[in-house]
Amino acid sequence: MSLPRIAVDAMGGDEGVRVMIEGAALARRRHDQFKFLLVGDEPRIKAALAAHPNLRASSDILHTDSVISGEDKPSQALRRAKGTSMGMAIDAVKQGHAGAAVSAGNTGALMAIAKLTLRTMPGIDRPALAALLPTLGENDVIMLDLGANTECDTRNLVQFAVMGAAYARVATGREAPRVRLLNIGTEEIKGTELLRDAATVLKAAADDLSISFDGFTEADKLCQGHVDVVVTDGFSGNIALKAVEGTARFVADLLRRSFSSSLRSKIGFLISRPATELLKTHLDPNNHNGAVFLGLNGIVVKSHGSASAAGVANAVAVTARLLEENVTERITADLARVDQDSLRPARSQEERA
Amino acid sequence: MSLPRIAVDAMGGDEGVRVMIEGAALARRRHDQFKFLLVGDEPRIKAALAAHPNLRASSDILHTDSVISGEDKPSQALRRAKGTSMGMAIDAVKQGHAGAAVSAGNTGALMAIAKLTLRTMPGIDRPALAALLPTLGENDVIMLDLGANTECDTRNLVQFAVMGAAYARVATGREAPRVRLLNIGTEEIKGTELLRDAATVLKAAADDLSISFDGFTEADKLCQGHVDVVVTDGFSGNIALKAVEGTARFVADLLRRSFSSSLRSKIGFLISRPATELLKTHLDPNNHNGAVFLGLNGIVVKSHGSASAAGVANAVAVTARLLEENVTERITADLARVDQDSLRPARSQEERA
Repeated sequence: MSLPRIAVDAMGGDEGVRVMIEGAALARRRHDQFKFLLVGDEPRIKAALAAHPNLRASSDILHTDSVISGEDKPSQALRRAKGTSMGMAIDAVKQGHAGAAVSAGNTGALMAIAKLTLRTMPGIDRPALAALLPTLGENDVIMLDLGANTECDTRNLVQFAVMGAAYARVATGREAPRVRLLNIGTEEIKGTELLRDAATVLKAAADDLSISFDGFTEADKLCQGHVDVVVTDGFSGNIALKAVEGTARFVADLLRRSFSSSLRSKIGFLISRPATELLKTHLDPNNHNGAVFLGLNGIVVKSHGSASAAGVANAVAVTARLLEENVTERITADLARVDQDSLRPARSQEERA
Repeated sequence: MSLPRIAVDAMGGDEGVRVMIEGAALARRRHDQFKFLLVGDEPRIKAALAAHPNLRASSDILHTDSVISGEDKPSQALRRAKGTSMGMAIDAVKQGHAGAAVSAGNTGALMAIAKLTLRTMPGIDRPALAALLPTLGENDVIMLDLGANTECDTRNLVQFAVMGAAYARVATGREAPRVRLLNIGTEEIKGTELLRDAATVLKAAADDLSISFDGFTEADKLCQGHVDVVVTDGFSGNIALKAVEGTARFVADLLRRSFSSSLRSKIGFLISRPATELLKTHLDPNNHNGAVFLGLNGIVVKSHGSASAAGVANAVAVTARLLEENVTERITADLARVDQDSLRPARSQEERA
């Protein structure tokens, strides 16, 4: 079976076409069976491709010089989508010309256009944005939703768990990923009724879903490596993700100030450079670049606006792995393995009765 | 005017009586007009006081050997409170024998007992837990609520802003503290209707409240030093606080691993020690110890269970400053300065009509 193409919005991102193309070329080295559809200004894409003959040989170009800007609100972006690089990359997925789209453009616009164009997949009520966070353990942890859905119901959270687990099987290789719900305590009585309901449903469905579910986790345990999937509504997930990012940057800033505070510190820093480089590697957001929009009829991946070529390469590589492993089909299969009624909490079953 | 006493639950905390007493003694050096009421096992308190004659001279002891344990659920703690060191310390505030109580015991129990015993102050519907976080700016930032109220309405958030601002005037010296609501974006349309309503009310009341209110802030900006008070419901606040704490610990662990990864790194670490010590000082939770339970008829401060004597001293010093500055009276005055109806969002006014 031939692999589907990856559509790359070459115009999104702060760093421009060159970085997107270089990133795709780097990713292609690791995933050399993939073909690409590069969407954007043809002259600039061709100029950037000159340095990457292998990518050029496996790519088609879809020309447009129209771009969704960082300032476009989702509603404006939806109106303008047609004919923009972002809109055309996503439309290529809808038309079956590509299996996935990668963009470094405006997140709100990307989510709105992707949702409207691709629609949610059967069995999923709402898509979710998932990302990988570094941990002290053997593998990264996946957290979702990160902001696609400000408010969620129990059913949404359960579906996020199914999607996150499918992603985790690809990202971590674990057959039964360790799934937890984000809460403000681990005792069963903690948090909102919604979270307690979701825990009840997931506990009952864990075997059918091939997940290891053990209730709640707290935000200070995210990076400890004991969990593979952290499920949360988009509001709390966004708060947690940004708090992690902000604190990592805060500590890095403090570290920089500390090490430049005296000549002695500077010398110590130079000597211990390999150690601080190791630290930087762990904390560099480029190494965890690529938030995946799951639950649509097709995969859409958001690369960070300020990502380097190496960062873009990670986002494209994530996309390639999700396509190689047929994640969308796997989610459908997982959903089919559980009785749909069991995904509803007792209360909403009564309401429907 | 003589200052009210500070009641110290000498039995809470993982480190026992000695650390609580040493902490109180350290704080007393900076706030030497205060008198203390030390609540707990008299023989052990007396033994600990032997090393601190100044504290001994300004303290009375209230004996009990009954303790609320870390495992007691809030409901159990409420039943058992009477006669325990935590219950007696809070009761001393109710009886007017002390102006504030400090405890390093079980947070849930402390909040439950404090709320039931002291009751919320006039004009406040629900108390909130507030803490200081380090920033890159001139002063710490105050965040509240951190978990006392899992779900909040607009009126609660507005009252948290009033209480947080009063605390910030004491902690930062700023007459018009910079207040923001925690949200998942800074645009006016972001987040829940609840947050948007609270923003509308605070914008209108900002001048009357002597606050500088400029809408929303995101969790990655918490530590940047641009804001003095971050207002949030207890669920999101707890998630944000724990994500910050967990990430700081994660980075510190990575740093430790990095620096011990090779002989060269170890040597570099030793040479740059003053720099890493500076970093440690910034991140040491003991330097930000003392979460304040605001909005009750009396001040209750939670010291971290694992705090060192220096950490306990910070919690006691926070308590002393809040008493010196009459924070509870100031909150009452601030609430009186704004029309109570204006603290209600338009919608709830209609509902009441």
